[in-house]
Amino acid sequence: MKGHNQVYLGVDLGGTKIAGLIGDQQGKVLSEQTVPTLADQGVEQVIIRIKTLIKDLMEKEASGLVKGIGICAPGPLNIKTGTVICAPNLKWKDVPIAPILEQEFGLPVFLENDANAAGYGECVYGAGKGAANMLYMTVSTGIGGGIIANGDLVYGRDDSAGEIGHMIILPNGPLCGCGQHGCIEALASGTAIARDARARLVKGEESMLLELVEGDLTTLTSRDVAKAARRGDELALSLLDEAFSYLGIAISNLINLLNPEVIVIGGGVSKMGDLLFDRINNYLRGHSFQHMVKGVAILPSVLGGRAGAIGMVALVQKKMGETGRTPGTILC
Amino acid sequence: MKGHNQVYLGVDLGGTKIAGLIGDQQGKVLSEQTVPTLADQGVEQVIIRIKTLIKDLMEKEASGLVKGIGICAPGPLNIKTGTVICAPNLKWKDVPIAPILEQEFGLPVFLENDANAAGYGECVYGAGKGAANMLYMTVSTGIGGGIIANGDLVYGRDDSAGEIGHMIILPNGPLCGCGQHGCIEALASGTAIARDARARLVKGEESMLLELVEGDLTTLTSRDVAKAARRGDELALSLLDEAFSYLGIAISNLINLLNPEVIVIGGGVSKMGDLLFDRINNYLRGHSFQHMVKGVAILPSVLGGRAGAIGMVALVQKKMGETGRTPGTILC
Repeated sequence: MKGHNQVYLGVDLGGTKIAGLIGDQQGKVLSEQTVPTLADQGVEQVIIRIKTLIKDLMEKEASGLVKGIGICAPGPLNIKTGTVICAPNLKWKDVPIAPILEQEFGLPVFLENDANAAGYGECVYGAGKGAANMLYMTVSTGIGGGIIANGDLVYGRDDSAGEIGHMIILPNGPLCGCGQHGCIEALASGTAIARDARARLVKGEESMLLELVEGDLTTLTSRDVAKAARRGDELALSLLDEAFSYLGIAISNLINLLNPEVIVIGGGVSKMGDLLFDRINNYLRGHSFQHMVKGVAILPSVLGGRAGAIGMVALVQKKMGETGRTPGTILC
Repeated sequence: MKGHNQVYLGVDLGGTKIAGLIGDQQGKVLSEQTVPTLADQGVEQVIIRIKTLIKDLMEKEASGLVKGIGICAPGPLNIKTGTVICAPNLKWKDVPIAPILEQEFGLPVFLENDANAAGYGECVYGAGKGAANMLYMTVSTGIGGGIIANGDLVYGRDDSAGEIGHMIILPNGPLCGCGQHGCIEALASGTAIARDARARLVKGEESMLLELVEGDLTTLTSRDVAKAARRGDELALSLLDEAFSYLGIAISNLINLLNPEVIVIGGGVSKMGDLLFDRINNYLRGHSFQHMVKGVAILPSVLGGRAGAIGMVALVQKKMGETGRTPGTILC
């Protein structure tokens, strides 16, 4: 750790794991550790696991040097009071996690939405490095996002901006988990692709997918669809054509609204690589406002699973620079 | 003009008229004047008319007191160099209007997109007064908009953000003027409502609309549809139900993306009042994220046709405060 004057600790609190790391001002990861969340054991136990993770990282590396801590979590949350309002995956409700950690460690602690954190990380240290206007989309079991405009995250009235997944683009389309029809999440997420694959196989369409899942449709995922598509399977290819043309529409809408320099796509489905990116770029070639489309780079995430925690390293620096906060000043 | 230390001059350059006014720091209009654009007479003549309008306003009111000039125009434009890149309605192409006016008047001149200016005006002095996160939509022959996030206009990479009208929400929907299908402009603008009315009348549906336009469908506008709807005409009511449910979807998408406090709707179609606003609010009652919807006020424009010019009064103040610009520093 020699030579690093200021380092920051970022934690990404997810439904299955808690990822922590220490990063320097250039976003270089100096040390990292991941533990299971085990949300079923209750809020207190998860908080203990977060504290232990932070302690372990500090002791291993740089206890005296960490200037601030950032933690990102699924929303909705109140970033001003540092409270997770409701996170069904974690079974958390009104947990003031930032003040709890401030009290424990005597350092400023900042809370952020996980997609915002990942987006900010990609913008400062990742695929969107240097962009003042960037969109981050995570396409996985669901679809989420973070918006950066004029160099800042867009939060909105109650820190809920960036719900990209529930953009309705097919009003009579499939039912979404949110209760609406035709949200992009219900059309192009990994879950949606697998659902449509199953439905078409049940109808009797031929495909190597049946073989890939050894006849057990319940195990079929979008990864299987990608695998079959790479082998030229027609059903799989048409499933991706359809899903990603909808994703293309959503991206086209976002370009019109926000005129970004870069759109970074992360999440499990983005690992399909050219199967995804070629289709998006193809769709955009038919877009009406070519002057807006031509300046946009559509890029895969480079920070991957670390984007949230690295994003917190960037955000803590920004917030401490902006607000000059010292521990305890926003304890609620 | 006594007692006003600093006043600003705002000009709204439109396809049919040029509206100018002088406003004070509280956005109070002290003097105003409107002249026809007469774009057919060519760029030079229109520029002369703008200069004369500005001179008249200054002489009448406050020549020594005007601190800066703002002009808004249809886009695309480059606000950094103050150049209108292309405005088909005006027949303008690459006109550096801000530097031209700076040279003429020896004052800082700022150029802005007209929908952005109107949105900013509503945000500072109008229906969205005090909101840090606001959306402005103008629903007229087309649909445009301006986005304010964290108290600032969202410009994007090349000042083109806010193209709300070309959000696709019905991929197999009607053809839009932009060449795509199912843009909200092709579903809910005044033009779209009139087009659908004509099509359904031609098919033989009964309606008092035929009588209202004295049998001449070519003269039918969305104002006629509103008039018939107020009298209980079923066809007219169903046209508005359909158009404004699509507008509801677009607004729902924008709420999810940007989580604003206020959405201000201006433009000719907004004059339908409750016929529009009741339908939007009804649609939003079925929205999945009630915590996001409940905090949003959907309001009609209060600045009306003056929103653009008043917005420039606000923007010039902001830009001069921020940049401390003096005349000529951004001459291109």
